[in-house]
Amino acid sequence: MATKIIVFEKPKLKKPIFIEGLPGVGNVGRVAAGYLIEELKAKKFAELISSHFMPIVIVPQNSTVEMVKAEFFYWKNKNGKNDLIIMIGDSQSIDPEGHYEIVEEVVKFLKKMNVEEIFALAGLNIGIMTERPKVVGAVNDPKLEEKYKKYNIVFDTSKRVGTIVGAAGLFLGIAKYYGIPATCLMGETSGMPFLPDPKSSEAVLKVLTQILNIKIDTSKLEEEVKKMKEFMQKIEATQMQMFQSPTAKKEEGLTYIG
Amino acid sequence: MATKIIVFEKPKLKKPIFIEGLPGVGNVGRVAAGYLIEELKAKKFAELISSHFMPIVIVPQNSTVEMVKAEFFYWKNKNGKNDLIIMIGDSQSIDPEGHYEIVEEVVKFLKKMNVEEIFALAGLNIGIMTERPKVVGAVNDPKLEEKYKKYNIVFDTSKRVGTIVGAAGLFLGIAKYYGIPATCLMGETSGMPFLPDPKSSEAVLKVLTQILNIKIDTSKLEEEVKKMKEFMQKIEATQMQMFQSPTAKKEEGLTYIG
Amino acid sequence: MATKIIVFEKPKLKKPIFIEGLPGVGNVGRVAAGYLIEELKAKKFAELISSHFMPIVIVPQNSTVEMVKAEFFYWKNKNGKNDLIIMIGDSQSIDPEGHYEIVEEVVKFLKKMNVEEIFALAGLNIGIMTERPKVVGAVNDPKLEEKYKKYNIVFDTSKRVGTIVGAAGLFLGIAKYYGIPATCLMGETSGMPFLPDPKSSEAVLKVLTQILNIKIDTSKLEEEVKKMKEFMQKIEATQMQMFQSPTAKKEEGLTYIG
Amino acid sequence: MATKIIVFEKPKLKKPIFIEGLPGVGNVGRVAAGYLIEELKAKKFAELISSHFMPIVIVPQNSTVEMVKAEFFYWKNKNGKNDLIIMIGDSQSIDPEGHYEIVEEVVKFLKKMNVEEIFALAGLNIGIMTERPKVVGAVNDPKLEEKYKKYNIVFDTSKRVGTIVGAAGLFLGIAKYYGIPATCLMGETSGMPFLPDPKSSEAVLKVLTQILNIKIDTSKLEEEVKKMKEFMQKIEATQMQMFQSPTAKKEEGLTYIG
Repeated sequence: MATKIIVFEKPKLKKPIFIEGLPGVGNVGRVAAGYLIEELKAKKFAELISSHFMPIVIVPQNSTVEMVKAEFFYWKNKNGKNDLIIMIGDSQSIDPEGHYEIVEEVVKFLKKMNVEEIFALAGLNIGIMTERPKVVGAVNDPKLEEKYKKYNIVFDTSKRVGTIVGAAGLFLGIAKYYGIPATCLMGETSGMPFLPDPKSSEAVLKVLTQILNIKIDTSKLEEEVKKMKEFMQKIEATQMQMFQSPTAKKEEGLTYIG
Repeated sequence: MATKIIVFEKPKLKKPIFIEGLPGVGNVGRVAAGYLIEELKAKKFAELISSHFMPIVIVPQNSTVEMVKAEFFYWKNKNGKNDLIIMIGDSQSIDPEGHYEIVEEVVKFLKKMNVEEIFALAGLNIGIMTERPKVVGAVNDPKLEEKYKKYNIVFDTSKRVGTIVGAAGLFLGIAKYYGIPATCLMGETSGMPFLPDPKSSEAVLKVLTQILNIKIDTSKLEEEVKKMKEFMQKIEATQMQMFQSPTAKKEEGLTYIG
Repeated sequence: MATKIIVFEKPKLKKPIFIEGLPGVGNVGRVAAGYLIEELKAKKFAELISSHFMPIVIVPQNSTVEMVKAEFFYWKNKNGKNDLIIMIGDSQSIDPEGHYEIVEEVVKFLKKMNVEEIFALAGLNIGIMTERPKVVGAVNDPKLEEKYKKYNIVFDTSKRVGTIVGAAGLFLGIAKYYGIPATCLMGETSGMPFLPDPKSSEAVLKVLTQILNIKIDTSKLEEEVKKMKEFMQKIEATQMQMFQSPTAKKEEGLTYIG
Repeated sequence: MATKIIVFEKPKLKKPIFIEGLPGVGNVGRVAAGYLIEELKAKKFAELISSHFMPIVIVPQNSTVEMVKAEFFYWKNKNGKNDLIIMIGDSQSIDPEGHYEIVEEVVKFLKKMNVEEIFALAGLNIGIMTERPKVVGAVNDPKLEEKYKKYNIVFDTSKRVGTIVGAAGLFLGIAKYYGIPATCLMGETSGMPFLPDPKSSEAVLKVLTQILNIKIDTSKLEEEVKKMKEFMQKIEATQMQMFQSPTAKKEEGLTYIG
């Protein structure tokens, strides 16, 4: 199956900017992007599914299943010059190749939609709890550092970050080949696995909304985090079970429901 | 090779309904679907092979080998408005991507045959033995819960099931993108690995035949289970051997017969 | 790269029969097929390379490298009605999917060359040393058992063999879909890993040459085994090193030569 | 995504010779090729990215990220008859198939550029420290040994080397099918993982520049090694973390930054 983007609606968007939030350390990016969607009442128009996600469906409530997927939302910005496309997802690829494939499919899709700029939202594991998380920036073009240094972003990144693993980093790397400027905003977090960090998400959102010149109320962020937690735990429990031991493959066979 | 469906006969079917039973917990779905095929004397018309199955052939009896495969049968329903297509299989995919590929190939095939609805049969591991297993339902459209709630199906599924792993769940998820309504019927079972659970299969079959409005005699179910056990054990022994240790890859090399 | 067959010469062959010998338990098939090539002075006409083999080259002698590959030889049978195509190889696939891909590519190639019948040569691990190894047969069509039961082949195979792992078995399974009758001849062997078993190879060769009605001198078989041993050990040493521990991937990185 | 070569400039080159240096034991090849690029002031004209590299980006300095990649440089040789194409890379494939795919994509690219000959530079692990490392040669055609035996190359290779693992060996193997003569120059090194060995690189460079009849100053080699070390350590730290334990897959999930 590889990776597919299923489009439900083809909105006409004005110089769109793309914002990405997939699960990761502290779920910082996922929570921030998800919250932005709720606050802006952004409208869903496409879904991405991939054979690089876990081969499961989720039963979030009642009896209707959902595939593991990423979702695309758009928001028409009446007061500004850029509309937004926001992507959130349930998971990252479970194998190395999948990260490349998924990110490249998305970037191709964005190119077709004439996306002008990309913001990848992420967490940065600093190993300790912090009350005032900084936002560390990474870019795919030095001009972006110049452009955004007036915002509250730390740009001595190479001293803090050796490599960026997974989708957020590849969005910058691959977008460069497609001529799209891209910035990664990483909120400092303690790096507790699968534990959402609303403070870090808030820090990232503050910088992002200043850059985009939009206003949102961040007071309900904690609430959003709680809602998300339950859903993510269903996925994470399965993931843990599938990868918990060297004999994972064998046990995988044993735990199939159907 | 990827995944191939080899078609031996092209039956003309009347608004066909598709029923799927692959191996899994308690082999509930596999046994139920296999028994239905025997009772209805359904006719085989296609086979599916895949490089996502184990790279082995089985010697079920005498000296003739069989590939690991799934098989498609049809049944013309003289008294009702829907003919049936029933699929049973020897195995699920041995790698994560394969589940997606196999299920999507089957769903494409069903779409071409104008299949109107899908029932995926499966087991649900509840960790304890039960004399009266319930049948838990999952759907890919909330309308299906509405349609089937009058049957003996438990639909508070999200409280019982976090995720459905493997083919049965993906049939629901992927069929949705192809516009085919799909329901998963999961028989409660104790979850003993590779141990068929005829009671659970019977519970699933009862609900399914009521929905389909067909009558079958379930008294020979235990017998079918015994027959299947021997065959499945040959596959499972190989599977165990291949995946039994962290050094499986090495040993795999050592245990090649040819 | 997947799997490629590179053809150096297009011989016109008369109703060719295909004989396959890849490494496996006791290297029974590889040794038997290799010896047949030497005795018949069969001529090489094609090679198969695959990204499912180990990513190495071998330095068998002097300084010239050889890829891991399978090789195809032909032999024109002046006194009989069937010419021969014989394939030997350095390795089997190192991943499960590769077995399917490699075998299917070969079978497609054989179909184009109008191959009439296939013999896959292999070893059968019986766990103990035996002075008089039996030859156990498996077929992809019950008619073949009928045809070959007058030869010295044991056909109560299902009692001795649950599954046949790897290429030899898949040759039977996949050839069936291409309409080519195929028989696997398995020489009993003690199953010592990577230890060639000339006695078992001899038993297989005796049956095969009787069926083909050709005469070869088997007295130099031990010599052939010694020659092959040294070459195979170079491959096996690398294989051992690559797959020796759960952290194989890491160490693989460390042991690169270039 | 597979493997892609992105070309920035299409230089017209005179009978080009290709030199390859990817990371490996002692980083001998990578350091030698990188130093040659600096000394010759060779010009970058293409990049290779691949989903067979680690799914990460690197932050070498400031805030601008770099993908894991290989880079192609050309050098116009005003005084000789062959221009040069030199490739260096950050990594080899992290999975076995990737080595085949990456090397074949490069060889196809070289064929289109009419490359006349290939030199793959590599290290050869001899397990002990040596003050005067020898250069051991491997070729894809015995004529090359004849051609280069007058240089300071040891050609009793099969006694020293069983197999060559990874890209350097496959360049020889695959280039042969494309009709390009190729030689691997392996500098003896102690095989300390990820520890660059400038002495071995120097030995390889001396032989190579004699063959190519070009002059370079090797006195700054130590300096180049230091510069490279820092950059490589960022990649290696991530690689270590990703593959450090049997549960690597799980932890991989936990250490995602974004």
